[in-house]
Amino acid sequence: MRDVKIALVGYGIVGHGVVDVLSRKRKMLREMGLNLRLVSVTDHTGTIASEEGIDGEKILGEKTLGKVATSSMKGKEAIDAIDSDLVIEVTPTNIVHGQPGLGHMEAALSGGKHVVTSNKGPLVVSFNKLHKMAENNGVMLKFEATVGGTMPLISLVERTLVGNTIRGIRGVFNGTCNYILTRMTDESIPYAHALSEAQDLGIAEADPSYDVEGVDAAGKVVILANALFGMNIKYSDVEVTGIAGITPEALGLAKDKGYAIKLIGDVPALTVRPTLVPLASPINVSGTLNSAAIYTDLSGTITVTGLGAGSIETASAILSDVISIYRTKRIDAIF
Amino acid sequence: MRDVKIALVGYGIVGHGVVDVLSRKRKMLREMGLNLRLVSVTDHTGTIASEEGIDGEKILGEKTLGKVATSSMKGKEAIDAIDSDLVIEVTPTNIVHGQPGLGHMEAALSGGKHVVTSNKGPLVVSFNKLHKMAENNGVMLKFEATVGGTMPLISLVERTLVGNTIRGIRGVFNGTCNYILTRMTDESIPYAHALSEAQDLGIAEADPSYDVEGVDAAGKVVILANALFGMNIKYSDVEVTGIAGITPEALGLAKDKGYAIKLIGDVPALTVRPTLVPLASPINVSGTLNSAAIYTDLSGTITVTGLGAGSIETASAILSDVISIYRTKRIDAIF
Repeated sequence: MRDVKIALVGYGIVGHGVVDVLSRKRKMLREMGLNLRLVSVTDHTGTIASEEGIDGEKILGEKTLGKVATSSMKGKEAIDAIDSDLVIEVTPTNIVHGQPGLGHMEAALSGGKHVVTSNKGPLVVSFNKLHKMAENNGVMLKFEATVGGTMPLISLVERTLVGNTIRGIRGVFNGTCNYILTRMTDESIPYAHALSEAQDLGIAEADPSYDVEGVDAAGKVVILANALFGMNIKYSDVEVTGIAGITPEALGLAKDKGYAIKLIGDVPALTVRPTLVPLASPINVSGTLNSAAIYTDLSGTITVTGLGAGSIETASAILSDVISIYRTKRIDAIF
Repeated sequence: MRDVKIALVGYGIVGHGVVDVLSRKRKMLREMGLNLRLVSVTDHTGTIASEEGIDGEKILGEKTLGKVATSSMKGKEAIDAIDSDLVIEVTPTNIVHGQPGLGHMEAALSGGKHVVTSNKGPLVVSFNKLHKMAENNGVMLKFEATVGGTMPLISLVERTLVGNTIRGIRGVFNGTCNYILTRMTDESIPYAHALSEAQDLGIAEADPSYDVEGVDAAGKVVILANALFGMNIKYSDVEVTGIAGITPEALGLAKDKGYAIKLIGDVPALTVRPTLVPLASPINVSGTLNSAAIYTDLSGTITVTGLGAGSIETASAILSDVISIYRTKRIDAIF
């Protein structure tokens, strides 16, 4: 049995999902030969730590750690102080300066701890530096959950399509925009109307600019370009146009000609913009789905689609990353 | 550098693709730390063997090995006689008795050699026995290319979605049927007309029954059920209906109501039959594409699509399997 001490940093929606999933999957993981022990959870109110492993059911009811915290340590201080093998970083994202996640990841990696994250900001701001830091310290940095939610894009390219040269990736990288465009098309309603419906449903935020202006999708383009295409680009290298200018008339006209209009991110073109997509194309997904077409030299075009977000869904992508770090031939053999 | 001696058995369309891909990718593979040495190629006319490795360019122009064979050894005899680490089995498939591939795989596995294959027949007939044989001999049996061509379904489930419990898989598993149904829908032409067009284009065989009666798709259902769901079923356990009874009128009526009619394979339902699929569903792919929706407990529904067949495409799936057998942490680190 491989024993792994996990420190979780961030206890919002995704953090709760991680605690929940680790708890639900304990038995299955042990059957795989992995004992994932959650030795600490840290948020902006403090830290709960336990060498034996924290019982998920005892803390899942708490919105923050305030009442159950065993120490006032936060962020980097907690990462440095707690003896762990792997840090799961899921604090709120900031794609301008990457903090506080960037500092957390640097602390973990320089301390010889693996990092698994769903936090885009630090990777958008500083992917190559973090990647090098992981290499130099002999640990891994895994970030499947940063791109496309449950859609297993990075792992698919790195593992399954490993014999291929990847020529490009194009897709729908933001579920909120895709929901709005789908509703505008299906109901012939204007942008403002569909946006407000999405806000009522919790699909769009009160300030929707991060999604609808293409910022989120562009962040994903930066991560894919640096991680899978060996590029070294910044957010400002991506040409970004959002969806606010799209009218139901344009969507209707496109549909009559056999096209949908989707907000498409493109690597290595480094663009995010409303784009005509043939109705029959596999990347033409509806609702909050994300999609990605991967253009390869040998396998043709492979497309993958999945839910763009969700607490348990994102936690599941994080769990896959954790397992892949400790995966051995022996684990392979159970299939 | 890991040196791997590969014996290729079968030199038809896929076999040629394997030789081509191994040759094209030699440099990339060596950068990954893998020296894949093709020490023999065997077909129904004999064997060409070379300890130093066969130069792909010297044999790719030959339709069979007749003129270049260095020995008259065939099949099992060649597998036993030639010193190899891994056998790639790509002889013509037979899903009734599985031969000659079944005998080839048994010879390889019992001789302590890994097996990678695109040959459905032996796995449909005898998956659990072959799987056990591999385990008992401490080697691996890999068969990504048997299901869905380039669509990386098995690897996706085994590796990328590893934290999930898979509840079901439904999809379009036969590109020939899907091409015919797509043409019937788009052009409102009858079945016989679309079939004959597909035959002219080489998409359907002169005797199309293996595809259009659902036999091929049902074979894939058997493999998925046994390999990914731990079942122990035979071909006769699958309820199969082909596409010959579908009319352009039915397709048109379905479309008016927002549906496509697709030949859908379903595990664990163990059915292959024409099924209504919502037009907006990600498994509603057109032309010769294959698709599969994977229903999971944590990640929701993940859909993958890709080309159903092709020489280089199938060889690429085989190469991914070969790499995955020898993949180490060090190989991971190049990404």
